[in-house]
Amino acid sequence: MEVVDVDLSDRTYPIYIGSGLLDKPELLQKHVKGKNVLVVTNTTVAPLYLEKVVGLLKANGSKINVESVILPDGEKYKDMGTLMKVFDKAVETRMDRRCTFVALGGGVIGDMCGFAAAAFLRGVNFIQIPTTLMAQVDSSVGGKTGVNHPLGKNLIGAFYQPQCVVIDTDTLSTLPERELCSGIAEVVKYGLIRDAKFFEWQEENMDKLLARDPDALAYAIKRSCENKAEVVSLDEKEAGLRATLNLGHTFGHAIETGIGYGGWLHGEAVAAGTVMAADLSFRLGWIDASLQSRILNLLKRAKVPVAPPSTMTIEKFQNIMAVDKKVVDGDLRLILLKGELGNCVFTSAYDTKALEETLHSFCPS
Amino acid sequence: MEVVDVDLSDRTYPIYIGSGLLDKPELLQKHVKGKNVLVVTNTTVAPLYLEKVVGLLKANGSKINVESVILPDGEKYKDMGTLMKVFDKAVETRMDRRCTFVALGGGVIGDMCGFAAAAFLRGVNFIQIPTTLMAQVDSSVGGKTGVNHPLGKNLIGAFYQPQCVVIDTDTLSTLPERELCSGIAEVVKYGLIRDAKFFEWQEENMDKLLARDPDALAYAIKRSCENKAEVVSLDEKEAGLRATLNLGHTFGHAIETGIGYGGWLHGEAVAAGTVMAADLSFRLGWIDASLQSRILNLLKRAKVPVAPPSTMTIEKFQNIMAVDKKVVDGDLRLILLKGELGNCVFTSAYDTKALEETLHSFCPS
Repeated sequence: MEVVDVDLSDRTYPIYIGSGLLDKPELLQKHVKGKNVLVVTNTTVAPLYLEKVVGLLKANGSKINVESVILPDGEKYKDMGTLMKVFDKAVETRMDRRCTFVALGGGVIGDMCGFAAAAFLRGVNFIQIPTTLMAQVDSSVGGKTGVNHPLGKNLIGAFYQPQCVVIDTDTLSTLPERELCSGIAEVVKYGLIRDAKFFEWQEENMDKLLARDPDALAYAIKRSCENKAEVVSLDEKEAGLRATLNLGHTFGHAIETGIGYGGWLHGEAVAAGTVMAADLSFRLGWIDASLQSRILNLLKRAKVPVAPPSTMTIEKFQNIMAVDKKVVDGDLRLILLKGELGNCVFTSAYDTKALEETLHSFCPS
Repeated sequence: MEVVDVDLSDRTYPIYIGSGLLDKPELLQKHVKGKNVLVVTNTTVAPLYLEKVVGLLKANGSKINVESVILPDGEKYKDMGTLMKVFDKAVETRMDRRCTFVALGGGVIGDMCGFAAAAFLRGVNFIQIPTTLMAQVDSSVGGKTGVNHPLGKNLIGAFYQPQCVVIDTDTLSTLPERELCSGIAEVVKYGLIRDAKFFEWQEENMDKLLARDPDALAYAIKRSCENKAEVVSLDEKEAGLRATLNLGHTFGHAIETGIGYGGWLHGEAVAAGTVMAADLSFRLGWIDASLQSRILNLLKRAKVPVAPPSTMTIEKFQNIMAVDKKVVDGDLRLILLKGELGNCVFTSAYDTKALEETLHSFCPS
């Protein structure tokens, strides 16, 4: 088992990564504080792992009272109405201030369970058990929680850190291939923004990742978590540096919002967004053509979209990006690549004509 | 103008208290960071003060873009559905991360606007302009924000501190008498839990408070804010000490929930709850009969209820108190008076038979 620590002074917490971790009750139990646990999961994950996790919490005569709530599966249910079901269950089952919420599922479950934990009784403990590659390498680490607003992704939420993250790599065996590839898009991101060697490793090992080679997946998850943990430790509340984790996300969020939540997976939208960000970076003269094509090639090999869907018009992009969380006093700040592989900037100091050209080159109208 | 600082290291903020503060644009403007402000108010307060506050923000050619959202008035609208109206308006008017939410109104508006500010884009600036005595002496200070769940008060929320609190005592001139008396019940609380001299001052000056003597009101507000600021500085997240601010609130919340939000004002329910807490403290032998009767007398003079409504049965009290935020691992912790005037404890170590006797003595069945 590998342990990656997210260093946040008194809120420091471990990420456990390894095979068979959901067979080790002590790991989970030592992070449960009170007598009550509410497991938050969805209709897809519950039949696969809920019984196992409940058993784990109750193992060795633990006396922990375990309740669960099963939400509908999918980004389109990541809304306030679905969140209320978690609060309803928590109140009905008399969860108290010392209780622990356990997020069992992918990024949507982690984000919603985390926000529910942040807001219930103004904050209770929570633990992440991510079961998708996307959640394991990105969303379960760093404390960003929230739900979508009909007009924009993750507009309502909180920064709220878990007690621990338990990543059992065995859970990836049940993951649909499309979900696997979506997660790989986020892995590619870490290489691009800050870890050239990791990007090169991915170029060499993409086939192994797609074949679900356990060692390759474990390494990719560990290296991704280490990168994210470092960034989050330096800038928890996203004053600046942390924003670089959103490479491709401004375009990507616009795609997700524009085609309706659930049309594309998050990593699919981010992949197309990353290609657009690379295109803009190249137009600005900030990266050379060879880097741009390496990015395109690696994402193509990862079997994720490398362009937005044809329904995304220039106007749609512009309207949705105007309400992005990274807009400040009217200026849209973007994460763009600049310089050698592994370097990026977070800036509003780019030629907006180049942005228009990028939109024109990717959109039919 | 008086200034009371709430000392919370990097989130320290001032409470400005005085007459005519809503005529001083620089006070408010210096705490507005970005270019966008969303004023959150209600249908009762908007006709009285919204234009004035918007004018204040725009005074001296400030270039601040001011938007507003007017919510229905009352505790029964302190719910997630109404909160969504704030988010809708914030998204529609393109509020960004540097924007400021301004709460203009009583405790309900402050709690909802604060929680909206905590959750919008995972946290934006906010400023409190409380216009009721209750909000000025209690709810606008200390960062507790949230909304009600149908099964319990303030079950969903956040600890979130404002940039500043601006208390213009002139706003009390438009306050209905019932609201004034409700606020006085919280003022009485500070004396009981930690400030014997303040309680004695109230015994001498209750008539002045009821007659809205400006100096008496200003002193009561200042002393209340000082007491609250001290407690909050020592225990922001309510690990222990801060809970003592909830004297009478467990019984009071049960009354509010039991008769439906909006039936009684918060301070009215707290007043009855304080009398019940004093009764229980006396039954336990923790305070003497003379203190119990001084409490009853002072609250009677303040024209607030000193017993729960007849519709509150013992069973209702018990069921609702079982989901109180102060229940931990099954035990209900209460704030009770113990010893001389000005002393209290926060404990689950009381004889539950005495609690039953108190409920029997105040409830018809």
